[in-house]
Amino acid sequence: MKIKQFQQGLKKKKIDFAVFYNLDSMNYDKDISYFSGYKGIGILIIPKNKKPFLIVPEMEYGRAKNKIKVYKWAKKKRLFEFASYVINKNKIKKKNIGINKNVFTLNVHKAFKKNFKKIKVVDISELCEKIREIKTDEEIKKIKKACSITDKLFSQLINNLKNKKIKTEIDISNFLETEAKKYNCELAFKPIVASGKGSSIPHYEAQNIKLRKGFLVLDLGVKYQDYNSDITRTVYIGKPTKKETQMYGFLLKIQKNTIKEIKINEKCSKIYDNVKKELKNYSKNFTHGLGHGIGIKVHELPNLTENTKDRIQKNMVFTIEPGIYFENRFGIRIEDTVLMKNKAIRLTKTTKDLLTV
Amino acid sequence: MKIKQFQQGLKKKKIDFAVFYNLDSMNYDKDISYFSGYKGIGILIIPKNKKPFLIVPEMEYGRAKNKIKVYKWAKKKRLFEFASYVINKNKIKKKNIGINKNVFTLNVHKAFKKNFKKIKVVDISELCEKIREIKTDEEIKKIKKACSITDKLFSQLINNLKNKKIKTEIDISNFLETEAKKYNCELAFKPIVASGKGSSIPHYEAQNIKLRKGFLVLDLGVKYQDYNSDITRTVYIGKPTKKETQMYGFLLKIQKNTIKEIKINEKCSKIYDNVKKELKNYSKNFTHGLGHGIGIKVHELPNLTENTKDRIQKNMVFTIEPGIYFENRFGIRIEDTVLMKNKAIRLTKTTKDLLTV
Repeated sequence: MKIKQFQQGLKKKKIDFAVFYNLDSMNYDKDISYFSGYKGIGILIIPKNKKPFLIVPEMEYGRAKNKIKVYKWAKKKRLFEFASYVINKNKIKKKNIGINKNVFTLNVHKAFKKNFKKIKVVDISELCEKIREIKTDEEIKKIKKACSITDKLFSQLINNLKNKKIKTEIDISNFLETEAKKYNCELAFKPIVASGKGSSIPHYEAQNIKLRKGFLVLDLGVKYQDYNSDITRTVYIGKPTKKETQMYGFLLKIQKNTIKEIKINEKCSKIYDNVKKELKNYSKNFTHGLGHGIGIKVHELPNLTENTKDRIQKNMVFTIEPGIYFENRFGIRIEDTVLMKNKAIRLTKTTKDLLTV
Repeated sequence: MKIKQFQQGLKKKKIDFAVFYNLDSMNYDKDISYFSGYKGIGILIIPKNKKPFLIVPEMEYGRAKNKIKVYKWAKKKRLFEFASYVINKNKIKKKNIGINKNVFTLNVHKAFKKNFKKIKVVDISELCEKIREIKTDEEIKKIKKACSITDKLFSQLINNLKNKKIKTEIDISNFLETEAKKYNCELAFKPIVASGKGSSIPHYEAQNIKLRKGFLVLDLGVKYQDYNSDITRTVYIGKPTKKETQMYGFLLKIQKNTIKEIKINEKCSKIYDNVKKELKNYSKNFTHGLGHGIGIKVHELPNLTENTKDRIQKNMVFTIEPGIYFENRFGIRIEDTVLMKNKAIRLTKTTKDLLTV
């Protein structure tokens, strides 16, 4: 994806090539996967003016070979030593080398420098993040699909809650995970299923307990062909009091207005500040960011928080998720994934009326 | 876990305190979770001679507060700036500071150093890994439970394969994920379900395709109360030829003998070398390590590979997983999780006879 644009970024910064690594077979590097489709152990090199290539251990060769050009790492050399050898062989200049300093650990950097001497290292973390901030049509299509699957999952869940087929918080989490698979998806993250006073904890972990009466925060998303969605709805188990209904309506109005009023080129920090203002006395009960970009990672740029210089641009995809929390009592959060065109368009379309189950 | 032992390690290295961080709400730091039980965003400080404490943002306070002592991060200060403030307030000496250089990224290190000046940074990655190498009774209990659940899952899977209820690779993966939940577990990693020529790729990713005839490599594990298991069995779909049966028997004999002969204090690289030797002409078809420690991470110390100084010690838990792979044709791998006492004891007890389905 966007290899050419990335290479232009390298040229601007006078970087000869960028190097990415993944040494953890239980995980994959998002940059490598984004640029090459490969999700295993190895190294990706992107020269500023040549085709990118992978270097992978023999055991990974089988699943790497159909992606881009691949070198089999000869284990007699250390990994970066071999990378240096391949770079020399390909006559790639190595004076300024780009690395993602948000990913390179101190020890990997040390091993890297042993084999790349007399070079200058340039941080490309921002370049990597910025390039994914604006989504292509193909990316938007996948995120839209992820969002529409999430809407379906949500509707199935509500039916099961109404039928009393689901009894515990963990049941909800398991139900979502199992159903997501039927759409060839997996969950984007461990869903937050927070009932009763649990809802007062934004990152609550679902427990093996009977659903408590009161507000129930449901925060979930799916990963469809590597692209994520993110939605939160707060429903009510039982019958809400008038005050609770008002509180929900108060937050909902702010969430809806925020989406309605987002403008191209607007400062993200300003959107956050506006929500803080609208919350009036409850602004101190809003304890997290207003939203985040979403794509191959659940959390990408832009950041809709207090301290950010990000601005809204066309074809960004991000969340709007104000919440209010009252310690040991309850919490409410309402979140949509939206796509920025001339206006912000909701991609998650589940109703935001207060559902009771 | 093992806080005192860790603090002794700090004292030996003349480290005043260790600092751990996690800034990713989609993930948690294994060191922080191991030492404090906390799995959210924040910082853990372990002084060499005082009680450890956490520093977390307000939104995480609710789920951190019942663990160890917690400070709420006042956002007017940057995170490490606030950490420095808390450390001064607690009159903790800060001359030599321990950090895990396998975790600290270059950019986090930079932010850290801005707020901790005139200090010496000491790498504690080895200390952190070594401390988890030898398991406590409580840890062993959890891993045993994880292994016994894995055996049950495997047996259920085989029944379903025999009944022809499961038809695709992805079906197997989904079946395992769904069933694991019934034991209050999740899968330790995305299972490897590699049928036919797919089995020749050690890290094959399950596809949405009908199971191919021939060898089927099934590599799976569960996470039970944070502790992992890991097993691989290769079964056969259809009727194996005599040569295939012999090949399987050849690898199985090596796997069994390896486990039988492991001795306390033996070099892990020697165990690996022996297997290479036993494989004779097929040694080049064995393209990965022989095994790895397992615990709160699926891959821990010791490493049973070529280049390692690790030695087998009592109460280590690790895998023994020789495999042979023939490009574009087939592969066989047989893996158990074992516990080292005077001898190595198998914790995964599923039969290793060649099952046909």
